[in-house]
Amino acid sequence: MNLPLGYRYAATYAGIRKDDRPDLGLIVSSPAANAAGVFTQNRVQASPVKLSRRHLSISHGKASAILVNAGNANCATRTGDAVALAACRAAAKRLAVPVSHILPNSTGVIGVELDPARIVDALPALISSLSETRFHDVANAILTTDLVPKTAFAELTLDRGMVRIAGMTKGSGMIQPLMATTLGFVVTDADLGATTLRAVLRRATERSYNRISVDGDTSTNDTVLLLANGASGVRPLAREAPLFEEAVSTVMEELAKMIVRDGEGASKFVTIGVSGAKDNASAARIARAIANSPLVKTAICGADPNWGRIISAAGNAGIEFDPAKVDIDMQGLAVCRGGVAAHFSEADLKSQLESPECVISLRLRGKGTGEAQFWTCDLTEGYIRINASYRT
Amino acid sequence: MNLPLGYRYAATYAGIRKDDRPDLGLIVSSPAANAAGVFTQNRVQASPVKLSRRHLSISHGKASAILVNAGNANCATRTGDAVALAACRAAAKRLAVPVSHILPNSTGVIGVELDPARIVDALPALISSLSETRFHDVANAILTTDLVPKTAFAELTLDRGMVRIAGMTKGSGMIQPLMATTLGFVVTDADLGATTLRAVLRRATERSYNRISVDGDTSTNDTVLLLANGASGVRPLAREAPLFEEAVSTVMEELAKMIVRDGEGASKFVTIGVSGAKDNASAARIARAIANSPLVKTAICGADPNWGRIISAAGNAGIEFDPAKVDIDMQGLAVCRGGVAAHFSEADLKSQLESPECVISLRLRGKGTGEAQFWTCDLTEGYIRINASYRT
Repeated sequence: MNLPLGYRYAATYAGIRKDDRPDLGLIVSSPAANAAGVFTQNRVQASPVKLSRRHLSISHGKASAILVNAGNANCATRTGDAVALAACRAAAKRLAVPVSHILPNSTGVIGVELDPARIVDALPALISSLSETRFHDVANAILTTDLVPKTAFAELTLDRGMVRIAGMTKGSGMIQPLMATTLGFVVTDADLGATTLRAVLRRATERSYNRISVDGDTSTNDTVLLLANGASGVRPLAREAPLFEEAVSTVMEELAKMIVRDGEGASKFVTIGVSGAKDNASAARIARAIANSPLVKTAICGADPNWGRIISAAGNAGIEFDPAKVDIDMQGLAVCRGGVAAHFSEADLKSQLESPECVISLRLRGKGTGEAQFWTCDLTEGYIRINASYRT
Repeated sequence: MNLPLGYRYAATYAGIRKDDRPDLGLIVSSPAANAAGVFTQNRVQASPVKLSRRHLSISHGKASAILVNAGNANCATRTGDAVALAACRAAAKRLAVPVSHILPNSTGVIGVELDPARIVDALPALISSLSETRFHDVANAILTTDLVPKTAFAELTLDRGMVRIAGMTKGSGMIQPLMATTLGFVVTDADLGATTLRAVLRRATERSYNRISVDGDTSTNDTVLLLANGASGVRPLAREAPLFEEAVSTVMEELAKMIVRDGEGASKFVTIGVSGAKDNASAARIARAIANSPLVKTAICGADPNWGRIISAAGNAGIEFDPAKVDIDMQGLAVCRGGVAAHFSEADLKSQLESPECVISLRLRGKGTGEAQFWTCDLTEGYIRINASYRT
């Protein structure tokens, strides 16, 4: 799989996080790309989130670079806005592009001042090391409690030629995307306008990042950016637009699922399907309520076929339904029919639930055709260990 | 402290739960009491919840007995409605009262059929062992994963004489009361009408059970009942109504806090105060969001003064506020002023957070006078251990 044309990448250790591994990354597009972003819905928003949003607005959806640091969220700090701006100014000057063409991103601890000199001083060497092949270096530099880097790729042969899509993301805790989550950067060399990009990104986010949860906490820094620089010279035809959107959505869905697989302390990947709801939004709310129930998540951790917790969690979603018309399957086995226990072998199902992949399906009979898939992980002692000691 | 007049209690092991400890309890009032109940808002409601609600409606708020079993929630079962009714009929016949005067309650595992013979066969011996002093036997019989029984008492000297209030409750997981939670039974010998009781119970629940969360899961069986049989011969005067309501509220608040102290795996009791919100309901929503954040709860488990997670959780409450006007104290120490870090000694605060009592205060400046207190516990590896293996 080839990387999109027209992008260069670099990463380095700038001394922002304590341990000596890369914490500063840069993605540069030339020519400048059309760009769209989706951002956290948390009322408390990090300085780089606010500035990226502003830059996209000032530039009318043009971007030359994504600047990202790990180890500090640059959120709820005295100097946050000034730090984000100083970093963008320094990068813009060295890259000879407008300041509004730099999209800043940060991830890490909240409420600790970020020294702008760490970034500004690291920029000259960072920029001189830019390379078309160092995509994975940036994917590594953005990680925090992640155990593995997360990337996904697609190539698409269109009527006028080939376009490439490459995405990277990070995150394993404070994960419950609402409109966006964590950090995700998707770049393509297709030629698309900013308005189209925004629509594609909004719908693709709804199908991917907005369908995962690790712990039900929505971060202050969640950002997904989609850049299209047109370096392939290929503009999709109108009839090819759905193909392109599907490819972007698939890349983003792969990235989102990787976050769940790497969920803090996770031992199992859980797919929750809800069908037969009034509409897709109702189905998604029920699926999210099941995904966020600590009792469901701990039962899965213990390979316990406790479907009573699933139906109880569904009942807390705030969606009207008749409990007597609920069917639930686990690992493809009927465990609940019409709201009561189906006949199944508890021992068999328990052994199937030892699998690292768990599938829960809930059907509402007679409500409609709304459906949704949602991905989450189990809740284990590992999650507690990681988060009782993350900061100090 | 004396028990209210006119109530008798009994408990026994009826073979409903696996281990041999009391699982069936009975509280009988003579004369029949005026009664009010609040019930779970989960869409999935256990058979005894539905039947108790129906009986209160048929009887116009009269009750002679509370019948309660642990070890089986009698929820999402094929025969649940018939089982609850059969148990009430058998009790009513033996007590020579109308069936609608029996309020059934169940707690335990969801989705497993409950054999009515266990209850019906145990009733004769149970009823013949009724005694005015065996209040604590019932308080023990209703426990599931609880480590300690939970009771609270009050005496009130009014113009016309003395009245007594006694309450019991259970619960340590699947605890996020919404309108009611878990099981709670409060009995008094004061003379009050059912309409007054309903209003008192609704307001007192809002201040007590609706202000706690262990894990954010709302059960299918939550029920709080308030019975007033008038056996003291004392009807509070109009001007004494607030006194009586305050006494009931205090008993219920004590009971609710005991549930949190006994939260599954809990090592710390956390009091969250929010002030300066637009109104009390907004303050409560912010407090609840903080209480339910796994990242806040694990930080407290680890004695980590990670106030960034607190402000981030507040930002997810769905309430509008300016992050730059947020102050946060932990253990009475300023940790955040105007949305950014205050000057505090992290080592000092960390050692204060080792205390089993944790206090978090969040103030919004310039929004209003709305305030709320909320109680929760930390999230520990013990919670995972208990819930990964509760059923099987």
